[in-house]
Amino acid sequence: MKKCYSRKTTPADLLFLLVSHESLIKAEGIEFDVAYTSVLKRAIKTLYLIQEELDCHWIPVHKSWRLNERHHGALQGLSKSEMAEKYGVEKVKMWRRSYHVRPDPLDKTNERYCFNAKPYAGMDQSMIPDCESLKDTVERLLPYWYDEIAPAIKCGKRVLIVAHGNSCRSLVKFLENISDDDIINVEVPQGIPLVYELGEDLRPVKHYYLGSAEELAAGKAKQINQGKPNFKGY
Amino acid sequence: MKKCYSRKTTPADLLFLLVSHESLIKAEGIEFDVAYTSVLKRAIKTLYLIQEELDCHWIPVHKSWRLNERHHGALQGLSKSEMAEKYGVEKVKMWRRSYHVRPDPLDKTNERYCFNAKPYAGMDQSMIPDCESLKDTVERLLPYWYDEIAPAIKCGKRVLIVAHGNSCRSLVKFLENISDDDIINVEVPQGIPLVYELGEDLRPVKHYYLGSAEELAAGKAKQINQGKPNFKGY
Repeated sequence: MKKCYSRKTTPADLLFLLVSHESLIKAEGIEFDVAYTSVLKRAIKTLYLIQEELDCHWIPVHKSWRLNERHHGALQGLSKSEMAEKYGVEKVKMWRRSYHVRPDPLDKTNERYCFNAKPYAGMDQSMIPDCESLKDTVERLLPYWYDEIAPAIKCGKRVLIVAHGNSCRSLVKFLENISDDDIINVEVPQGIPLVYELGEDLRPVKHYYLGSAEELAAGKAKQINQGKPNFKGY
Repeated sequence: MKKCYSRKTTPADLLFLLVSHESLIKAEGIEFDVAYTSVLKRAIKTLYLIQEELDCHWIPVHKSWRLNERHHGALQGLSKSEMAEKYGVEKVKMWRRSYHVRPDPLDKTNERYCFNAKPYAGMDQSMIPDCESLKDTVERLLPYWYDEIAPAIKCGKRVLIVAHGNSCRSLVKFLENISDDDIINVEVPQGIPLVYELGEDLRPVKHYYLGSAEELAAGKAKQINQGKPNFKGY
């Protein structure tokens, strides 16, 4: 099985999912026919590094804002102490621990508001969030799964998804049918490829990480740290 | 106008074409909404460098074998003297100077035969060339222009094409309606972005290079050298 990620060069919040039919993974190991990623530079650049390492520059790459990281609204760019000072410890805890509750929106004139940028120029303004609960992230991601990724898997493609902490958690919630309450406590280690082998009905038959126990522990620690409110570089 | 190519990092045989509506280029300068390239690594990597330089990682990138370099058949990988020794000076001259004549085919067991590789695994075998005249290259490239690139331009997209010496010459021949005889003497400088401003009918209104006179002269010299039969790294 080839090494398919670069630990040294992986930005901290990125996750990789290989999703494919069980039989294909068993027969052919970890290889990709097509890749999906967000429109955020850190994800695209990480995907490029994976393509370099696997020598698969030629595979089709599809980019969508639907795989972007969760929009943390007014919390974007604030340190933990800044958050607590501005909104109070209890409110911040609720925002972080709840599946349904949105943080306060980010003002569109704020320098951290990214939807003025070119990747979003063609979008209908009513589609653009100014903050998201994890539920919102799941709901805007799933159309992309149903319309683009799942049909590719049905056609026998081996799919690589390079996305972000919360966009990958959203997909994990959906694939594993995790409840709204339980997903809050699910941590997905950072930078460790996570493989889902799917059955004919596209439900998981099994899943596992491509990493040693030490790498998994380090990845989980990073993920927990990143769960702390110190969001940067959205 | 932004600098949109990297002289230091451009492999020798690559060309860039920006093709778009005249009015869009006048109004907005050199920017891209979508990019097209071949499935050859040197083209994809060059496109990535351009995206780095223009900070436009997010734009959709489409890759097709139809933008690949001309398949030079039995000449692939041979030096000029090896060619002359093997096939005779007159025959090699005819292959190089003719628009219609194909070189001898490359045997499918030859280590330089690339169509066994993964990017071509889904292709119908009858589509796969084992040698091409420049005419063949034009004919396999044009469906991609008509079906993919031209519709994008019609929709108002500003298109970047990163391709190879002969695949770009093929497109230049088509756009400028150059005769079969005249295209043989047309050299397109290497590594210098070539801009085509098109009218409503997608015919060129004007075209020009984004480079100084010195850069153009150096690019043309490289192109003439590369025209010499020393093809490598197909």
